[in-house]
Amino acid sequence: MSGIITLTTDFGADSPYVAAMKGVILSIDPDAKLVDITHSVPPQNVRQGALVLASVTPRFPPDTIHVAVIDPGVGTTRQIVYARIGSQQYVCPDNGLLSRLALRQRPSKIVAATRAEFWLPRVSSTFHGRDIMAPIAARLNRGFEPSQLGSAMDHVAHLAWREISIVPGKIEGAIESIDSFGNLITDISSGQLEGVPFDEVRIACDEHETLGIYRTYNDQPDMTFMALVNSDDHLELAIVGESAAGMLGITVGTPVVLSW
Amino acid sequence: MSGIITLTTDFGADSPYVAAMKGVILSIDPDAKLVDITHSVPPQNVRQGALVLASVTPRFPPDTIHVAVIDPGVGTTRQIVYARIGSQQYVCPDNGLLSRLALRQRPSKIVAATRAEFWLPRVSSTFHGRDIMAPIAARLNRGFEPSQLGSAMDHVAHLAWREISIVPGKIEGAIESIDSFGNLITDISSGQLEGVPFDEVRIACDEHETLGIYRTYNDQPDMTFMALVNSDDHLELAIVGESAAGMLGITVGTPVVLSW
Amino acid sequence: MSGIITLTTDFGADSPYVAAMKGVILSIDPDAKLVDITHSVPPQNVRQGALVLASVTPRFPPDTIHVAVIDPGVGTTRQIVYARIGSQQYVCPDNGLLSRLALRQRPSKIVAATRAEFWLPRVSSTFHGRDIMAPIAARLNRGFEPSQLGSAMDHVAHLAWREISIVPGKIEGAIESIDSFGNLITDISSGQLEGVPFDEVRIACDEHETLGIYRTYNDQPDMTFMALVNSDDHLELAIVGESAAGMLGITVGTPVVLSW
Repeated sequence: MSGIITLTTDFGADSPYVAAMKGVILSIDPDAKLVDITHSVPPQNVRQGALVLASVTPRFPPDTIHVAVIDPGVGTTRQIVYARIGSQQYVCPDNGLLSRLALRQRPSKIVAATRAEFWLPRVSSTFHGRDIMAPIAARLNRGFEPSQLGSAMDHVAHLAWREISIVPGKIEGAIESIDSFGNLITDISSGQLEGVPFDEVRIACDEHETLGIYRTYNDQPDMTFMALVNSDDHLELAIVGESAAGMLGITVGTPVVLSW
Repeated sequence: MSGIITLTTDFGADSPYVAAMKGVILSIDPDAKLVDITHSVPPQNVRQGALVLASVTPRFPPDTIHVAVIDPGVGTTRQIVYARIGSQQYVCPDNGLLSRLALRQRPSKIVAATRAEFWLPRVSSTFHGRDIMAPIAARLNRGFEPSQLGSAMDHVAHLAWREISIVPGKIEGAIESIDSFGNLITDISSGQLEGVPFDEVRIACDEHETLGIYRTYNDQPDMTFMALVNSDDHLELAIVGESAAGMLGITVGTPVVLSW
Repeated sequence: MSGIITLTTDFGADSPYVAAMKGVILSIDPDAKLVDITHSVPPQNVRQGALVLASVTPRFPPDTIHVAVIDPGVGTTRQIVYARIGSQQYVCPDNGLLSRLALRQRPSKIVAATRAEFWLPRVSSTFHGRDIMAPIAARLNRGFEPSQLGSAMDHVAHLAWREISIVPGKIEGAIESIDSFGNLITDISSGQLEGVPFDEVRIACDEHETLGIYRTYNDQPDMTFMALVNSDDHLELAIVGESAAGMLGITVGTPVVLSW
């Protein structure tokens, strides 16, 4: 075990609700090492939560436990699950949060966390992050077997992830997220760019077009609309030194077409 | 000792002033485990700071030391105090920050932190969080006796907390805080709701009214104005899937009337 | 070694990019103690990053490793450097981030971090914070010798820092930064105020003027424009209980003139 528990939520940066979860975890496992992934997932945006988990959690040491609380269905019959995907472990509502990770690699273990003896003695109906997921993570971190949490499951909940269309001379994808610099990150991965001529491909998004895929922001002058493969191996559209999202008004979901 | 020191301030999320306090603490106690409660208490809002401390700190392991720096009187004659309330310890200005916790449970020990040998050698007149409270917390965490900090005191500073009016068929309280989702949290606790008929009580706030107290946000359709008992055991008014504060323009202090 | 690694970036509060760096660090050194300084340095503002490092990092225990990623030149030929300044260690792009610290004290060791065996095996061209600086910091924290990182260097990159003009009866400086309360922090340090008559000096900034330098915000009534020496030993202009930056519209770079 790495001893590390990470937290990803939509509670907002600096929320005291996150601190309440940390208090619960440390009360059960005083040696837990807590790391915040982000708490700025847009409220109830399971899809963005799934993208953050897929992008960041594989960077952590093996056996790290990642707790994710984007939970619009809290208090309904949605399950809370434990899953092992690759070398990492996850505790979260079974609402699609793991669906992006599961696209890439099938979970090797999934358990429905139904046995209440691992939860807080008193469970609210609106904050299962604190009352169920935090104590489960703390107990797993202390060595409890995931299979004790409840019954094994076959698969985690699914979200529809847009398919990239690839035909000779043309790739169609879309803007999938926007980072804090306003860079536009597409769902097209570097693997899908194999065979694309980087120096003469045309990339169109909304009414804007750019020629070529570059290596770094510094390969083009300030204020230029440009494309590059980003540090997460995805095609990204940026305006050098500026916010592309802000200047062009492009939002998540906008189609991106490469042609050559 | 839990070895944990938490920090609550009004310095703003991600403020380097918080990091300066952490540097001071770790210079004295390199093994301290630091946890942020929140740094987004509105500037100089002692009342909101008192509510956050009362809501979150009891979740931490026994003997955790909670440092709170919402300190409009810095540089005046206001005291800095150590207090033990229940199983938790606090270091903060004596300006009412502990008054909400003290309503619920009388502090078992209060000490005026006047002895300068526990402070930094050089104390600024505007940042006692860094120069006095941080070093005191670090030294307590290493095992120093609180009674060494200065003279014992009888009580902590008082803030007036609105009383809930309860008469047969009617309860009158008010909105006490608003969370990051825009939910309106009242000062009426679940204990005060005993005997209230949850399915037929009318709840009025400003010009808005709703019928019944529900268990979760998911018991009502999207966009419905509704009431529930929240995860801190207080009556809360919400609009499902939206910000009630934003949509209704209701602010802290607005009266809330239950009648049945 | 203190075992502490701090992080200062312009990624934005609560950015998952910071979490990716933490994952990389903890994968190499699971015992690293991570502390955030701030991630709210304005995008690509190397000058503000240099001021934050100079103000906060000297508060940390000896041998703490401070990683700073404000890196507009990522992917160009700018070096990444290790430097020891006073008792602290730094890993950052050599773009002026250390120039403010180096003004005060000459670095005792500077190394160009060019040897790729200390980096991640696969280095992106846009995120050297994660792929080069994080693994270097983790390896130094585990005891690797800084001189192994690459060749020794003579000096770190320079930024022009405005000189304070001091003549009999007059000091001219400027607003250098603005804190989260809207206080206006000048580049005039308390050492430079020696001999100034605190009770009769006139301080002018933009079209606003105030008389005298006070000890604390509480020495003047609410809403008063006033001057004091702040907790970082710099002359600061404030409006008691309000945001001076917001109310007066004064920005970084505005001249400040003291006369007596």
